[in-house]
Amino acid sequence: MHVAIVGATGAVGVEMLSILEERAFPTDRVSLWASARSAGKQLTYRQEKLVVRELNPAQMQDVDIALFSAGSSITKAVAGQFRNGRTVIIDNSSAFRMDPHTPLVVPEINPQDISTHQGLIANPNCTTIIMAMAVWPIHRNNPVQRLLISTYQAVSGAGASAMQELLDQTRQYLNTGANTSEPRVLTRAELQSQPNVFPHPCAFNLFSHNTAIDESGYNQEERKVADETRKIFHTPQLPLSATCIRVPILRAHSESITLTTERPITPDQVRTLLQQAPGVRLVDDPQRNYFPMPIDASGGDDVLVGRIRQDLSDPTGCSISLFVCGDQLRKGAALNAVQIAELLSNR
Amino acid sequence: MHVAIVGATGAVGVEMLSILEERAFPTDRVSLWASARSAGKQLTYRQEKLVVRELNPAQMQDVDIALFSAGSSITKAVAGQFRNGRTVIIDNSSAFRMDPHTPLVVPEINPQDISTHQGLIANPNCTTIIMAMAVWPIHRNNPVQRLLISTYQAVSGAGASAMQELLDQTRQYLNTGANTSEPRVLTRAELQSQPNVFPHPCAFNLFSHNTAIDESGYNQEERKVADETRKIFHTPQLPLSATCIRVPILRAHSESITLTTERPITPDQVRTLLQQAPGVRLVDDPQRNYFPMPIDASGGDDVLVGRIRQDLSDPTGCSISLFVCGDQLRKGAALNAVQIAELLSNR
Repeated sequence: MHVAIVGATGAVGVEMLSILEERAFPTDRVSLWASARSAGKQLTYRQEKLVVRELNPAQMQDVDIALFSAGSSITKAVAGQFRNGRTVIIDNSSAFRMDPHTPLVVPEINPQDISTHQGLIANPNCTTIIMAMAVWPIHRNNPVQRLLISTYQAVSGAGASAMQELLDQTRQYLNTGANTSEPRVLTRAELQSQPNVFPHPCAFNLFSHNTAIDESGYNQEERKVADETRKIFHTPQLPLSATCIRVPILRAHSESITLTTERPITPDQVRTLLQQAPGVRLVDDPQRNYFPMPIDASGGDDVLVGRIRQDLSDPTGCSISLFVCGDQLRKGAALNAVQIAELLSNR
Repeated sequence: MHVAIVGATGAVGVEMLSILEERAFPTDRVSLWASARSAGKQLTYRQEKLVVRELNPAQMQDVDIALFSAGSSITKAVAGQFRNGRTVIIDNSSAFRMDPHTPLVVPEINPQDISTHQGLIANPNCTTIIMAMAVWPIHRNNPVQRLLISTYQAVSGAGASAMQELLDQTRQYLNTGANTSEPRVLTRAELQSQPNVFPHPCAFNLFSHNTAIDESGYNQEERKVADETRKIFHTPQLPLSATCIRVPILRAHSESITLTTERPITPDQVRTLLQQAPGVRLVDDPQRNYFPMPIDASGGDDVLVGRIRQDLSDPTGCSISLFVCGDQLRKGAALNAVQIAELLSNR
């Protein structure tokens, strides 16, 4: 089996390679592809140095599985050149997620959907995956009628350069304004530090997700969460609304979720359902005040779920609130893509 | 008029003093009081150095207005020693907020309530004030039937030492783990840095508000938001649920709010109501993707409101989502207290 990673030097690409190795994915050959700028870089796989080459579909016709994490425009530009009956693209971009002929898959939720693929399977948005992992085990038992989400999204969703921007801006702030003994208000100038990846300062700041806002007032990220969840759950009418916020965290997303189910539901029922759910770990200890945190989710595979409680604003007893954290680069992107590859490989 | 500040060297106390000066509050004398540890420190007021003294109610019987920001236990211990018919305590702690004989006041919302005071007026919790400022103008026009809140709370709510802890932990992390050129996962050890104020690392991390959890699964902060809002709005049954989360931000709180009103409501109606609301500033520019941010709220008086949009998960058209930011130390604490003092002074 020849596995290619396209966008191999990006934050997600690097994770894809290390997850293939970690999970002992059955590869005969792994090839790495990226833009011309990254060609020549070396990455280690199974103690072997692999050289990154400039993306060239003509040289890739013997690829069995191509893990794409190169952005929508690249996928759109080159996907057609892999319709050779052999290569299956697993694409981390949003290019084809809502295409009716493309399966959109979270292996723990809708693995059966991969059977309809026509050479391309889409990996959902990170915020969607992490939330869906916690909500699906509840939904399949007691159908969700309404879903409200507020996110706390790490900067890694905007790539390795965004992570570097957060570190650089933070370092700059600490080296200037905050070197006094008394904490004080930061000025915009101190924080600005020539924002590059983000339009707003990210150090010690947060902001609404910087994707285009449509006429309804929702940004693209929020639309993705709604549309993709409906597709993955096969509930095209599911009432769902998200507020997506970027916070100064490096790589794990957190989400505050309130859901309303068809029938009354209790926190204990939710705990039981989630305890049995693969890929989900309960971190819900009121005595120790210990709940999901980005530092505990970062680098791990599980989606952490806690703060499970009755939503007291719904007197019908049909609403539950919970708080989740998941590594945006792993289950939110690279791990989910490799799990889809495993489904393909097992068939 | 003799105004005393109790807890003068704390993060809120320092703001109280500077806000008295900024707003040209009519003082004949200002005295500063704190714990023995802080006695002897000097703070500047109207270009004069004032020496902080150890709290001593016996020496304070000529105080007209005592702005307390010293914590619940101090207020409970000494409030009784000010029942002299002269001194009015405006207390920033939670000690008497829910006492039925104590008014709990946001001047823009329920100024009339101060008339029932018996020597003590309570200042609400910061998260409550900032949210209530945005919700009240809507509620008085179209009564709110349900309120769901997820917070992004600055560390300043835990005092100046918490702000210093965030800066120190962040500096330590940048000086160790993150000095490599590639961003990578932080380890708990790198972040831990002997947490002192908070039980969990705060640099590049977030966590559920670290107050005790009751049998319903809600923490004290979340209970305060619910109970206090009902008291301020005079809606003892208002269905309300909050999820309170601490984020690595220095001093402005943000909140994602979804509210359901009695009658259908549109984003334009909400904008019109909020444009006319004192103390509220619309920051709602979808074209520029410019919405409320902590760096813009910090140091200012207004509660910033944006992301105003129909909540698409409610097909009745009665739900609105919005995002607010306010300075936790100013409108969330010191400014609101001084505004209550102004109401007293104007009578």
